[in-house]
Amino acid sequence: MIIVLRPNASEHDLEQIVTQVTALGLTPHVSRGVSRTIIGCIGDEDRLREVPVLAFPAVETILPVEKPYKLAAREFVARDTEVALGGAAVGDGAVHAIAGPCSVEGRDMLLETAEAVKAAGAVALRGGAFKPRTSPYAFRGLGAEALELLAAVRETTGLPVVTEVLDTRHVALVADKADCLQVGARNMQNFALLTEVGESGKPVLLKRGMSATLEDLLLAAEYVLARGNTQVMLCERGIRTFERAMRNTLDIGAVPYLKRETHLPVLVDPSHAAGRRDLVPALALAAVAAGADGLLIEVHPDPDHARSDGDQSLTLDAFAELMDRVRDVATAVGRRVAETATP
Amino acid sequence: MIIVLRPNASEHDLEQIVTQVTALGLTPHVSRGVSRTIIGCIGDEDRLREVPVLAFPAVETILPVEKPYKLAAREFVARDTEVALGGAAVGDGAVHAIAGPCSVEGRDMLLETAEAVKAAGAVALRGGAFKPRTSPYAFRGLGAEALELLAAVRETTGLPVVTEVLDTRHVALVADKADCLQVGARNMQNFALLTEVGESGKPVLLKRGMSATLEDLLLAAEYVLARGNTQVMLCERGIRTFERAMRNTLDIGAVPYLKRETHLPVLVDPSHAAGRRDLVPALALAAVAAGADGLLIEVHPDPDHARSDGDQSLTLDAFAELMDRVRDVATAVGRRVAETATP
Amino acid sequence: MIIVLRPNASEHDLEQIVTQVTALGLTPHVSRGVSRTIIGCIGDEDRLREVPVLAFPAVETILPVEKPYKLAAREFVARDTEVALGGAAVGDGAVHAIAGPCSVEGRDMLLETAEAVKAAGAVALRGGAFKPRTSPYAFRGLGAEALELLAAVRETTGLPVVTEVLDTRHVALVADKADCLQVGARNMQNFALLTEVGESGKPVLLKRGMSATLEDLLLAAEYVLARGNTQVMLCERGIRTFERAMRNTLDIGAVPYLKRETHLPVLVDPSHAAGRRDLVPALALAAVAAGADGLLIEVHPDPDHARSDGDQSLTLDAFAELMDRVRDVATAVGRRVAETATP
Amino acid sequence: MIIVLRPNASEHDLEQIVTQVTALGLTPHVSRGVSRTIIGCIGDEDRLREVPVLAFPAVETILPVEKPYKLAAREFVARDTEVALGGAAVGDGAVHAIAGPCSVEGRDMLLETAEAVKAAGAVALRGGAFKPRTSPYAFRGLGAEALELLAAVRETTGLPVVTEVLDTRHVALVADKADCLQVGARNMQNFALLTEVGESGKPVLLKRGMSATLEDLLLAAEYVLARGNTQVMLCERGIRTFERAMRNTLDIGAVPYLKRETHLPVLVDPSHAAGRRDLVPALALAAVAAGADGLLIEVHPDPDHARSDGDQSLTLDAFAELMDRVRDVATAVGRRVAETATP
Repeated sequence: MIIVLRPNASEHDLEQIVTQVTALGLTPHVSRGVSRTIIGCIGDEDRLREVPVLAFPAVETILPVEKPYKLAAREFVARDTEVALGGAAVGDGAVHAIAGPCSVEGRDMLLETAEAVKAAGAVALRGGAFKPRTSPYAFRGLGAEALELLAAVRETTGLPVVTEVLDTRHVALVADKADCLQVGARNMQNFALLTEVGESGKPVLLKRGMSATLEDLLLAAEYVLARGNTQVMLCERGIRTFERAMRNTLDIGAVPYLKRETHLPVLVDPSHAAGRRDLVPALALAAVAAGADGLLIEVHPDPDHARSDGDQSLTLDAFAELMDRVRDVATAVGRRVAETATP
Repeated sequence: MIIVLRPNASEHDLEQIVTQVTALGLTPHVSRGVSRTIIGCIGDEDRLREVPVLAFPAVETILPVEKPYKLAAREFVARDTEVALGGAAVGDGAVHAIAGPCSVEGRDMLLETAEAVKAAGAVALRGGAFKPRTSPYAFRGLGAEALELLAAVRETTGLPVVTEVLDTRHVALVADKADCLQVGARNMQNFALLTEVGESGKPVLLKRGMSATLEDLLLAAEYVLARGNTQVMLCERGIRTFERAMRNTLDIGAVPYLKRETHLPVLVDPSHAAGRRDLVPALALAAVAAGADGLLIEVHPDPDHARSDGDQSLTLDAFAELMDRVRDVATAVGRRVAETATP
Repeated sequence: MIIVLRPNASEHDLEQIVTQVTALGLTPHVSRGVSRTIIGCIGDEDRLREVPVLAFPAVETILPVEKPYKLAAREFVARDTEVALGGAAVGDGAVHAIAGPCSVEGRDMLLETAEAVKAAGAVALRGGAFKPRTSPYAFRGLGAEALELLAAVRETTGLPVVTEVLDTRHVALVADKADCLQVGARNMQNFALLTEVGESGKPVLLKRGMSATLEDLLLAAEYVLARGNTQVMLCERGIRTFERAMRNTLDIGAVPYLKRETHLPVLVDPSHAAGRRDLVPALALAAVAAGADGLLIEVHPDPDHARSDGDQSLTLDAFAELMDRVRDVATAVGRRVAETATP
Repeated sequence: MIIVLRPNASEHDLEQIVTQVTALGLTPHVSRGVSRTIIGCIGDEDRLREVPVLAFPAVETILPVEKPYKLAAREFVARDTEVALGGAAVGDGAVHAIAGPCSVEGRDMLLETAEAVKAAGAVALRGGAFKPRTSPYAFRGLGAEALELLAAVRETTGLPVVTEVLDTRHVALVADKADCLQVGARNMQNFALLTEVGESGKPVLLKRGMSATLEDLLLAAEYVLARGNTQVMLCERGIRTFERAMRNTLDIGAVPYLKRETHLPVLVDPSHAAGRRDLVPALALAAVAAGADGLLIEVHPDPDHARSDGDQSLTLDAFAELMDRVRDVATAVGRRVAETATP
């Protein structure tokens, strides 16, 4: 249930209503838009019917939220959420690029990649420390050592760091080093992990599960939001279908659909969708044209010798070239590419 | 098997080799590129090994075609196929828009739509005369009457006409009136129909089946090509997946994938993919950014009262507005929107 | 809309109501059950509200059909449809086996197979004359010659013949030779073909499309039923999913679901689902346990040299052995295996 | 790599070879079959080529394991794995039923259900303490309190307890109370959790993910096996496809496919596949006919008032009736239903 206040509602009015909502056993979420303030209410909505809320002169109207997700619903907040990533604000209308290697393999390759993607226009560095791998015999990342390397490279380059967390027991460790916690596709419905990253207070990059509907994705985000963490970015990365010509099928329609359904920023990962380097640029440009708030791209100085996902990683040069094309398409759709502030 | 001739090969050399190939019981397909000519050979390839083809001085090399499709394979022809649609050449690098109502409902609505989409930049008019409908109780099109209306509107506007054919027995009738025969998603593996449109000599717009792999699609095109008809356009229109938030899941990756695999033009139908009007523009722009040769879009003067697919049809104004945005994105990726010649 | 008559309604009552329904512009379908007769009405149901049907003393109640399919709906007829196949009645509660080679390859192999499957308990012979093949270069069947062979083998063995028809122009030809027309998965939504087999008056075996929902399947059946042909069998043969360990994913749940939704018999084709011989028996037994009215199984005297689908064809011995196990499972679920009458 | 010993190999021979394998840096897994012993070797297989293993007189042959999973592969062990569940041995050839409520809702309902399912022939009690729920607002189980209730009911009834664990931090807690740890579909690729249950030493019931291929499932099992825990049961519970008539599509073909690929027991959960009570029995019988080692079935004394999954839960009576039919089908396929020993 959403309580919409009149434009001229005072802080006192707001407080009064919040008190009333709380007294009914519901949790109020106050959201201030440009022209008016709304109060989203989570809990047993029938209680709200017990008091004549509309009788408050400051209340303009009350709206139900028909969707199973509430905090994630566009109606529930007064304006688009912006997620802070270093100096950048994902969701502010610009296109944000997050790039880096699939796995952190060592200091040199990480630094080289970070400097190159920064120069090309990325606002954040991605890099896997803990890697989810289908086979127990595959390389699973350098773990804590990689976290240290990521933190060190952030010191040098100023790029904020996005890295995946796989285990509830690692959330504090990863949150201590990283600027943004990634929840991967395979853990999208690991509800214990969602709750824990919700508690962490860190920005969260939530990837869509391989067979998750968009409603499932929004409900997964709701788990994080329900812990009081509003800093959530959604990421479409391809779904599993019968078509196996590519690694996954990029659901490009998810971008405009999610932009209508939610106030959260929507990213696209063309690397995991394509699974092969030569198709990544076309998917990245399509994502920008479709309205994505950002891109998550795998880049490696020497993809043919990468320890994981080499087939789908761009070279440093290919990434720089792609960013030029991204700029052109962003401009064509009336947007710009976010740049890192020069320190 | 593909025989690649040296740049300086003469017509006489070519004839000699063609004669030889034919004598072996294979069918040669001569294809002249900018710098050299190649001869694709269909049939029992083992026969080709019986003669020392490489001993011909005009032959540079022989290449196998590993793919199950041959005539549709990019390697098989020397340059991109262009499909003639009135004065337009789909596949020439420009973005071509084909637009019109789902069903032809009457002369006035058809003429109004045709004039509007032409003014907005479409190069051809689409309009259903025979409609495949999931339920036998739904409106199935005006049939032969609609073909007459389409032909009449072509006379008035100069726009070539694309319309679907559902039955082998109707191919001659439809080919007599239309400029391009559409084979719909549900008939993509109706091999009798593919053979018949292959024989018709008319350009063919072949839509991907709901659960057809891209290899299936290329093999369906091969059926048409194998009847000597090289004028085939492929069309991605969304596949059926577990996600039901939209009508279908647009497989945007199909665009760059097909452009690598085949010399045939690749179109995208954002209307059937989205199934709802508000998402069509984002998908159309994504298709252009991903490299599509054209768009197939449903437009209706009064979508809310359309007899079929109204939910996904754009209004005339919305289509004109979309075309402006398509022009911007096309420019951003170094292309242009094809325009109809002024009569 | 369904009009349910009281148990004691007379023929005169029935005629009166049918006349009334017809006068309203609706088409009545009279269906006599064990204890009562019902009249299904197709057409503009609002018209029915114009007359006080319930005022007829012979009318017990009127029921709406909420489903998009009407004639195929269980509610619409008073008892299970039985489809005549030679002396057998598919849908009578027994398990019916239809077996034979994927393609008719010659007289000897066909006769050998027919005699073997008959001895093992099959009630009909399947065999492809016109084969739908994904590639235009694959063997497409012996065509009219195969129809002659099938007819000749029927003369010898007494087994009725089931064979696929691919083209509206072949319906009369195939109907002349075969006892049952098969519409294959790729043509499940070839509405022109469905209409034509509906007109043919022959029993129809309708296979589910690779990505057809069960509702789509029932609506496809509705096309046939709507032409006055009530002799339709449905066949689940596996759907296309992300899983590629087998050729298709057998949707075993379709069996009990369809048995609840429709009065038409439901068969299962374990051969196309599995795509490999060793898994066919397990799927066949599962189908019987789940309630299937019959099985459609590919059998070949020498599968390793079959011209199509050899990987999934059982040997003659393996089929005989399977039929023994089918008998055991049928008995366990309170049913029996239908046997051909000894001539 | 698998080293197969001759039938007459001695314990001394075995020790010698194990020592040799270990010295090469590989991990040997000794597996004693009825007639011979095999040693599966995990690690860098190239090392094994450095020593002339075949020169040992006790070695009959060496076999590669081509599959990405090793410990889970049928070739890797000499006979079917049996998983101990109380007095039962799942995988011994009999059909084992595990039944109980979706969630533990209280002592009375749990005890009533346990006694009823035991009387009907179940060998273990299932019941959710920690429930994964798509929405954060849904009932998520009674947690630790439910574990106590399960343990208490085991005391009373003698039925071993199967319950799901969602979080690596809960593994010890759950392992302390339960007899078997369930890893649910949404956590099938939660590799941290798989590792932890592998370390626990408790039997594991591993459910297939909604969009996991069978290879993914076997690799997930490999994670558990690689921690030295051989007590793993696989469970097919339906996959996510385009078909939404049922909650999921039961991949019945997975049963015979897995039985060929792995030595681990294969269960089927017809409740989650169907999502509706009326279809559960048909799916359960199909699973037994297809060769499943067991069934996992949701049963509730009052399904219409269940706090989760009531739609798909059988009543106590319906379960008892189903077990009678399961017995008939098991007998028909030459098997029996495992019964709990009378205390």
